[in-house]
Order: sequence, then C-alpha cells, then structure tokens
Amino acid sequence: MNKNQHTITYSQVIHLSQIIDTNIPQWPGDPPVEFSSVAHIPEDGYYLRRFSLGEHSATHINAPKSFHENGVGIDQYSAESLVLPGVVIDICTDARLNSDYTLTVTDVLAWEEKNGKIAAGSLVLLYTGWQDKWLDKDRFFNQDESGIMHFPGFSYNVTQFLLAERKIAGLGIDTHGVDPGKFGTFEINYLVLAQQGIVLENLTNLNYLPAKGITVIIGVLRLRDGSGCPVGVLALSP
Amino acid sequence: MNKNQHTITYSQVIHLSQIIDTNIPQWPGDPPVEFSSVAHIPEDGYYLRRFSLGEHSATHINAPKSFHENGVGIDQYSAESLVLPGVVIDICTDARLNSDYTLTVTDVLAWEEKNGKIAAGSLVLLYTGWQDKWLDKDRFFNQDESGIMHFPGFSYNVTQFLLAERKIAGLGIDTHGVDPGKFGTFEINYLVLAQQGIVLENLTNLNYLPAKGITVIIGVLRLRDGSGCPVGVLALSP
Repeated sequence: MNKNQHTITYSQVIHLSQIIDTNIPQWPGDPPVEFSSVAHIPEDGYYLRRFSLGEHSATHINAPKSFHENGVGIDQYSAESLVLPGVVIDICTDARLNSDYTLTVTDVLAWEEKNGKIAAGSLVLLYTGWQDKWLDKDRFFNQDESGIMHFPGFSYNVTQFLLAERKIAGLGIDTHGVDPGKFGTFEINYLVLAQQGIVLENLTNLNYLPAKGITVIIGVLRLRDGSGCPVGVLALSP
Repeated sequence: MNKNQHTITYSQVIHLSQIIDTNIPQWPGDPPVEFSSVAHIPEDGYYLRRFSLGEHSATHINAPKSFHENGVGIDQYSAESLVLPGVVIDICTDARLNSDYTLTVTDVLAWEEKNGKIAAGSLVLLYTGWQDKWLDKDRFFNQDESGIMHFPGFSYNVTQFLLAERKIAGLGIDTHGVDPGKFGTFEINYLVLAQQGIVLENLTNLNYLPAKGITVIIGVLRLRDGSGCPVGVLALSP
C-alpha cells in the first residue's frame, strides 16, 4: 500500500449530491426512481423501503464499462482513486448567455492565471449554474423542438488538454452530462473513461466551493460490474 | 457555517463497504438485490442497468425514521455529520468463542487503558470477524433450530455508556446489526438513533484499520425520507 502521507485541512464539509426523489430529472430512456414500503414500525419494529433507480440517475459516477466494451465496473475503483484534490471552474456567466457553451483551453489558462496551474491528479469541477434548474426538467434538459438538448459542458479539446497536459484524474459537472447536451454523443465520457478516470454528473452546491483547495470524496455503491452508480459526494473545503 | 479548522493526516484510503451483488446476505423479509439491463453500447452508445435493493441492505446506514415514528430521514443528515474520527475495538477472539458475545464497558475501559480515552464525536467500530463470513449466509446469520440468530454486537449498557459518558457520534459493525443477533430487538439502534447518531452495519476491511487515528467518511444516497441507505464508506488511515 501507498505510504505517502497526505494532509487535508478543512473547515467545512459540503454535500455535493442532490437529494434523490421520484421527481428528479431522468435522462430519456432511464428507469424511474421508485420507492415501495417493505416493513413498518408497528408490525415489524422498523420501517424500511425497497428503492430502485438507474445506475446513472441522480448525482452519479460513470464507469468505463458504460462506454467501453471491455471497461471495468465501478466496483473496480480503488479507495485511493475516490479521494481527490478538486478545482472549480465557474462558467455560469457564459452558460447563461449561451446554453451550448463549452469550456475551452483559453478558459482554463485564464483560470490558471488567477489560481495557479491545475495539479496532476485533480478533479476538475465545472460550475455552470445548471444545479439551480434541477427540479425543473424542461429547463434542466432544455430540449429544442427537434429534441436536441442544450446544456453546457466540456469541449473535446479542453478534455484532451486536461488529460494530456495536466494529468487530471477526472471531471465533474452540475448538468446531466460532462458531454454538452447538443453533442448527442459521449465523447467526453469516452475519453476520460478510457483511462478509468472519474466522471461525476448532476452535482450540486458548487457555488459554495472556492476555486481551489478542496478535497472531494466520492462514496460509491460498489455495484458488481456496475456501469456507474448514484454517489454520495462530500467536499472538504478550506 | 462552522469555521473550526480540522486537519486529517493519512497515508492509506480503505474501502469499508462490501461489493453489492445478487448473492449478498439479506435480512429476513428484505427485498432482493436486483439488476436489469436498460441500455447497451451497440444500440444506445452506453451500457446502463436499473438496480434495486432494500434501504438496509449491503453496507448501510440506518436513519432515525427507521426506528422512531417521528424520526428524520437519511436526507436530513448534515455533511459535517458524515466525516468522523473513528476508533476500532477488536473482539474477534471473544466472538470466535461465543457468537453471542456483546461488547462490555469493561472491554471499552481496557481498550482505553491501551489507547487513551475515546474522544467525543467518535465513531466506534466493532470488529467481530463476521466480515469474513459475508458470502456464507448460514454462518453470517448463524440461525439456530428455532430461527434465532447468533452474532455479536453492542450491549445495551455499553451503548448507554458510550453515548452518555463518551459522547460518541455513533456505532459501526461488520455484522448485519449493531444489535446482537440473539436480541431479536433493535434497542441499540433505537438508543443511537434517538439522538440522530450514526449506525453503520455490514462493514468490511476492519482488519486493515489501526485502533485509533482514522477518519471515516460516509457517502450516503440522499434518499428523500429514507429509513437509511446503502453507503460508500471510506477510511483515511494514518
């Protein structure tokens, strides 16, 4: 095991996962969130429900198996890979003006100008403002008349740049996809998961985070051969 | 928000959650773990499943709502309450000799003699050795001819002592219940959850942890009004 010592200093812990309920927005074709009561306090001594949802519903992580035929499942992620330094890039203003806005290399270099170079192994969180549209499905997916979605995300170039030149660990976003809605493809997922990176979608509370200095901890359901899973994500913030 | 600074120093991260599959042991009456394919790479561009299980299946947390009629759901736990200093008490030897062994106040005082007083706000993890029986349902639940289960746990007295005299944050164990199997009741859950404490069950890898100095981070599915939920638990170990 790795005996390198790490130190985390923090003063706040922040939920980055949305609450899961039957009314959360679902990607077209995804199964609904369902709950059914199984046991009750008067009869059984305890209350308990069965629940079901899709592996990519709510705030979730995607695994290589979802996009690469021979990719591993979420159960194969090491514990070490789920504790990461995080940086937050805020594109709310651009995304408000243009729902199809995608993060560019220029944006990253401008961020670095202010905050310093993104460290290897970082998780890059993109704050688009979409977290506030969460319970309004129409605005969250923002489909046009021909059914194409319009929400911001990572560009192909910036993803290549971050992986190759900054050696980042992965990406996270407050929309339903690191791939911009308009793409209709999954190139960004494909790229990041080719190297078993981290892809987090439907995050929230990114407005409470500073641009750098946070630690992101991802609590996964270790579903055997899972294509991903809903996650409990916590940020330790300075 | 709390501006007290905390520092965590660690060199290893350890999964404390079991892998979730259809063959994990289920408490009598609990719904099965089920997976069904929803989308496939050739047709859809991605692979995805629907999954379902009980709120207290696999490695899980229990919420007050499960044992107290007016208790809160798991979605009401603050982010701060899910990051905790942990101590590990090893009763493997006693539990091997007596499946009904329950932790006593004397055991805790003996542990403190060696390791120092348990700090307020700690999560007390009980390592019984039951984690190794996980995929062998008969041994894990260890039911006798009359259906009574026999696995170790916390005694009522020690739980009262830990809550009142040590102001702990909660309990965790590698069996299916902080309540010993033989009890057939849920007094320990009831006590801890009366104050919205932490109850973690079906933990694993407790053998990799030192007696003290760890930080336990609990990634919960924030199920609205959930009686609990499966969790991704990570330990940061010195």
